[in-house]
Amino acid sequence: MPVDFPQILAEISHEIEPHRGGGQVAQYIPALAAIDPMKFGMCVALGDGQAFCLGDADERFSIQSISKVFTMSMALRKVGEALWDRVGREPSGSPFNSIVQLEMERGIPRNPLINAGAIVVSDLLVEEVGAAAMIEQLLQRLRLLSGDESVSVDHIVADSEAKAGSRNRALASFMESFGNLKNPVEETLAAYFSHCAISMSCRQLARAALFLAFDGRDPISGMTMVTSEACRRINAVMMSCGHYDNSGDFTYRIGLPGKSGVGGGILVIAPGHGSVCVWSPGLNKAGTSHVGSVALETLVKLTGWSVFV
Amino acid sequence: MPVDFPQILAEISHEIEPHRGGGQVAQYIPALAAIDPMKFGMCVALGDGQAFCLGDADERFSIQSISKVFTMSMALRKVGEALWDRVGREPSGSPFNSIVQLEMERGIPRNPLINAGAIVVSDLLVEEVGAAAMIEQLLQRLRLLSGDESVSVDHIVADSEAKAGSRNRALASFMESFGNLKNPVEETLAAYFSHCAISMSCRQLARAALFLAFDGRDPISGMTMVTSEACRRINAVMMSCGHYDNSGDFTYRIGLPGKSGVGGGILVIAPGHGSVCVWSPGLNKAGTSHVGSVALETLVKLTGWSVFV
Amino acid sequence: MPVDFPQILAEISHEIEPHRGGGQVAQYIPALAAIDPMKFGMCVALGDGQAFCLGDADERFSIQSISKVFTMSMALRKVGEALWDRVGREPSGSPFNSIVQLEMERGIPRNPLINAGAIVVSDLLVEEVGAAAMIEQLLQRLRLLSGDESVSVDHIVADSEAKAGSRNRALASFMESFGNLKNPVEETLAAYFSHCAISMSCRQLARAALFLAFDGRDPISGMTMVTSEACRRINAVMMSCGHYDNSGDFTYRIGLPGKSGVGGGILVIAPGHGSVCVWSPGLNKAGTSHVGSVALETLVKLTGWSVFV
Amino acid sequence: MPVDFPQILAEISHEIEPHRGGGQVAQYIPALAAIDPMKFGMCVALGDGQAFCLGDADERFSIQSISKVFTMSMALRKVGEALWDRVGREPSGSPFNSIVQLEMERGIPRNPLINAGAIVVSDLLVEEVGAAAMIEQLLQRLRLLSGDESVSVDHIVADSEAKAGSRNRALASFMESFGNLKNPVEETLAAYFSHCAISMSCRQLARAALFLAFDGRDPISGMTMVTSEACRRINAVMMSCGHYDNSGDFTYRIGLPGKSGVGGGILVIAPGHGSVCVWSPGLNKAGTSHVGSVALETLVKLTGWSVFV
Repeated sequence: MPVDFPQILAEISHEIEPHRGGGQVAQYIPALAAIDPMKFGMCVALGDGQAFCLGDADERFSIQSISKVFTMSMALRKVGEALWDRVGREPSGSPFNSIVQLEMERGIPRNPLINAGAIVVSDLLVEEVGAAAMIEQLLQRLRLLSGDESVSVDHIVADSEAKAGSRNRALASFMESFGNLKNPVEETLAAYFSHCAISMSCRQLARAALFLAFDGRDPISGMTMVTSEACRRINAVMMSCGHYDNSGDFTYRIGLPGKSGVGGGILVIAPGHGSVCVWSPGLNKAGTSHVGSVALETLVKLTGWSVFV
Repeated sequence: MPVDFPQILAEISHEIEPHRGGGQVAQYIPALAAIDPMKFGMCVALGDGQAFCLGDADERFSIQSISKVFTMSMALRKVGEALWDRVGREPSGSPFNSIVQLEMERGIPRNPLINAGAIVVSDLLVEEVGAAAMIEQLLQRLRLLSGDESVSVDHIVADSEAKAGSRNRALASFMESFGNLKNPVEETLAAYFSHCAISMSCRQLARAALFLAFDGRDPISGMTMVTSEACRRINAVMMSCGHYDNSGDFTYRIGLPGKSGVGGGILVIAPGHGSVCVWSPGLNKAGTSHVGSVALETLVKLTGWSVFV
Repeated sequence: MPVDFPQILAEISHEIEPHRGGGQVAQYIPALAAIDPMKFGMCVALGDGQAFCLGDADERFSIQSISKVFTMSMALRKVGEALWDRVGREPSGSPFNSIVQLEMERGIPRNPLINAGAIVVSDLLVEEVGAAAMIEQLLQRLRLLSGDESVSVDHIVADSEAKAGSRNRALASFMESFGNLKNPVEETLAAYFSHCAISMSCRQLARAALFLAFDGRDPISGMTMVTSEACRRINAVMMSCGHYDNSGDFTYRIGLPGKSGVGGGILVIAPGHGSVCVWSPGLNKAGTSHVGSVALETLVKLTGWSVFV
Repeated sequence: MPVDFPQILAEISHEIEPHRGGGQVAQYIPALAAIDPMKFGMCVALGDGQAFCLGDADERFSIQSISKVFTMSMALRKVGEALWDRVGREPSGSPFNSIVQLEMERGIPRNPLINAGAIVVSDLLVEEVGAAAMIEQLLQRLRLLSGDESVSVDHIVADSEAKAGSRNRALASFMESFGNLKNPVEETLAAYFSHCAISMSCRQLARAALFLAFDGRDPISGMTMVTSEACRRINAVMMSCGHYDNSGDFTYRIGLPGKSGVGGGILVIAPGHGSVCVWSPGLNKAGTSHVGSVALETLVKLTGWSVFV
């Protein structure tokens, strides 16, 4: 039975209405704090090239930690399993910026999707190709996949992140003290803040991540982005670790690999079906979009897209 | 393309050969320590009733923590979402018997698949139906599903567990101090030690868990064991939390919901395909069967059964 | 210049007046919760046999953790430095009943003045002389030193403690799981609850502890209670660890070795001068008598009895 | 009975002989790693101006964390009790550079004698008087007290510290993220690294700290350095927190307020008697001079200088 997406999106639109404006918009930098909490966008991208959108699906937002999925993918392409010498792949059970485990585990972050882990991934990529080339290659790939040459870093956001970056600076210096940072702290952090500050729309993100739903091969261009095995593993890490200390709850309620960002975006992969991006800036306590979660929960209920069926 | 299971099992048999006897057999009770480390059994149960077996697939072993999947299922049937008032569903990031988080989180265990959480589940079931009836109902269901009336508790193992049970006693008393234990500590622990001491074979366990691969409905008898939603959620909790502080790695390498037991068994669910049980007593550092993990990794490679494809 | 104690006590009486009734009376057992929060007693015992008292100095109260000073003394007499194989002598930096460090430090409590440490001390004494004899010897010594044959255990309090003892039971079982408990949990706990439930007055306690101010020798009877070296070390442990996670603040404000109990008593040693006991049931957040602390701070200011001058 | 110091020092010299060269010289910067492990110096300074010295008592070494006693004193003079709004006075129970507690306690370090706390003290002094003036005032005071105009910062050491300073940089950035750092991280750290890199001899340090043994008043010049109350409190913090997670053991074995430095120096105050400095570069696991501890333990045994008598 074919899924009637326009009908499903209409139901989602209805379902989220009472939640609009809920949650708390990120306040730590002005560029994020200024976003209208009523914004809501959603896009479902399918393997045949169709995309079904809702609301502000074409408005760009700061993708923030969603970018970590793409830098992890790039690191797996560049160094393969050697990535895991410098970062784990276990859920942290802790908030996104916790430093406690880092001390007990001697500078090896729990996974590439918490801040400390993503900083190590940036450090590794800076080491491999240099900071400028790393960002350039990442943007090229996102532009290619999303079909929009204008995808770029929002430098106002990146600069704000750098200014408000004490906690990430602490994480980086701490890992450096254990020998798990190879470049100067500020150089690695500049790369990290840049990729977090990329702006994309729901439509672009859903489109760009489609290869993760089709075994590593972009179904539209036919290009292989990562190996089949790497693709499965990226999805596995998203499933285990995509939402900090809320990862288990997300898996329980939504049942799909995903990654949330503090800008209010959530990217979700439905293997074999497609990829989905929602955006709404109000966050729950774990830093995941509140309205976005409701929308995804409804989508999964209506499509039956859980990986557990 | 139909999967050629006899061929796959032959390859697995070949693949595990150099690993046979690896890992460390559990030493904390004599009944487990005495098991021959060379034992290996495996059974793949399919929805059409077929079962493909290897090695000691018909020898019973102590299912230990695998029983937690069935007590969690029972609790969801009895009290539904109220279960989550007393236990979380986040990965712990800690060993199976850690007490640290329990102090920080004021007596609410992280999930029902670590010891503390499973003790709370037992406590809840003892409260609902009484200790004797709880074990009786659990056994009846396992007998019904596995088609073997002789499935039962190994009382020698249960008694040994009780004697060596200081750590679990500490967890229970600790939760009692936070008001999260309703029955006397020893009564709840007796129920807990009993369900952990159930003996089953790979064939029986794979068969008994088949409903979890088919949306809550046992495909052979046609009986609905849990709702479709509960089924998805049980799988989700197994995926997030089934292997203590090794859950992320298991998800990464095997990509299926599973639960390991210190007796050397691992139960794995392949939604829409079937269920698999392996058994080999040597454990890795996280308490998961070493040879069993290798066998499952090979199976997944050959069948492509990851949920992430 | 001789100290004018009647004048000093009068000033203390004036100073504490606005604080009377402050703090929170311990609520976890009825026998403690029922105590009138306005109670206040104080006694300063000197080496020449003089004792200066204030308020309810002759009313008995539950000495609770103050008893740990006497069991630690007994353990040092019985086994000497071997005590430190089973318990540390570092401040815990944690609340009195924390279990976190016990996990990291594999069942060895930080010091003999937190609950876990005192349980190990009781266990060691039960092992050495048996539970009944241990309590009997302790009482005999307290009776001898305080000159009152009626000093005894309040069995209503001891029974209440046992009933409300989940947290201490958890600590004991946890240590047993690491091999640091030699007797059955309930036997050791019974001894522990008994010595915590001894009732004494400020006058009796100050008198009984006088030997700690005079290098281990009771200045009135002339009897040596502990060696000079043990005496200095008991005072050292009281100074470092006598008030849980408030020990540093107590040292800062009062500057004398001391031990507080949840019954509202505080025992303080002024080496070379005498010993002091205050009692007032309202506790601060760290479980130390609020009014008692104010009284001691005033006493130290007026006498200059800090060890740091 | 007058103490025969030449005789006591001779006994100490004999007692430490078998320990010479023991422990591990600090390796994290070349300037410390290069120090001859056989070095040993000791000086006992008395209130009447006498100083009894042993071995390399006139050789300068890097005072490192001993400087924290002087910056804490300066902070108490400048802002009084307001110091405690930004740093606690409880023992940490953790190694000198731990970051765990800092996360749980939201950027407020446990005490001014661990790295994080001393960085906050430096930050406060930089805020009050500026970085250059802070170091200048500190040096002037040390020169005045020690009677040696040449006391100064070893800039080679300070630069090395800055280069190897990732962990301290992490601590500072981390506290900044909680709002507990007011100046730029590098500015505060430069001040911190400078005062840790001051070089002094045992004779100079013992002499300079004499005011702490005489109620805040330097007995030789007659100048009041801190109030009587501040003096008692500085000693109290040294007693509670002077040796990281070894503070309880130091109090137990030596019974005097003290502060150790990773350069191998230990400063100890004997209230009413005098002050003592030992130096020997080999450190025990807690970062305290191994031979220095033995020398102090012997001194205390022979003089009876414990505060607990």
